[in-house]
Amino acid sequence: MPFDPATLRYNEAGLIPAIAQDHASGEVLMMAWMNAEAVAQTLETERVTYWSRSRGAFWVKGESSGHVQKLVDLRVDCDRDCLLVLVDQTGPACHTNRRSCFYTAVRDGDEVELMAPMT
Amino acid sequence: MPFDPATLRYNEAGLIPAIAQDHASGEVLMMAWMNAEAVAQTLETERVTYWSRSRGAFWVKGESSGHVQKLVDLRVDCDRDCLLVLVDQTGPACHTNRRSCFYTAVRDGDEVELMAPMT
Repeated sequence: MPFDPATLRYNEAGLIPAIAQDHASGEVLMMAWMNAEAVAQTLETERVTYWSRSRGAFWVKGESSGHVQKLVDLRVDCDRDCLLVLVDQTGPACHTNRRSCFYTAVRDGDEVELMAPMT
Repeated sequence: MPFDPATLRYNEAGLIPAIAQDHASGEVLMMAWMNAEAVAQTLETERVTYWSRSRGAFWVKGESSGHVQKLVDLRVDCDRDCLLVLVDQTGPACHTNRRSCFYTAVRDGDEVELMAPMT
């Protein structure tokens, strides 16, 4: 069946959450948002492209930092309201310079930092 | 630092996205939503508990199906607006009886089913 980004289910702001996962290690790197055009651009260019809610603009991941995400595979969930992008991540995915944005764990009621910024 | 669910950033409906990942295989299983009380209950009970937007009620994953998610680790992202729950998943995570909700890939413009329902 041909894929059409318009058939996904977007929220009231026209956005769908996209989870980025390292295609080799399986590490979950980050979650950000796409609109239909960002989904289409990601597939066309194979450079993962989000919609920045704070800037109100397309966000080609790594465009300024060099920490690009090359698309390896795009997955759609059963409800068609969430995406999983398997990526080849250059450098850190997180703006704090950590490999993953999910570097804080909650253990025994405390927050624990699991990862240091990359150098 | 003690963890307080009230310090997370929820959307206008009081919800935060939670990504469930198999703690052993790294497979991303599903994405659903939690409110502050669901986060607290998940930590207390170690049974992953979402907020069902369609039912407007707590959703203790697997309560009716038996396909429970035992909490292994809870992670908070850098912006504190997304959670990653590492889980020990019994059976399929998806209501279609597939292990993961992300069973559809987009390849060369077509939708491809990667996984059959579990038997």
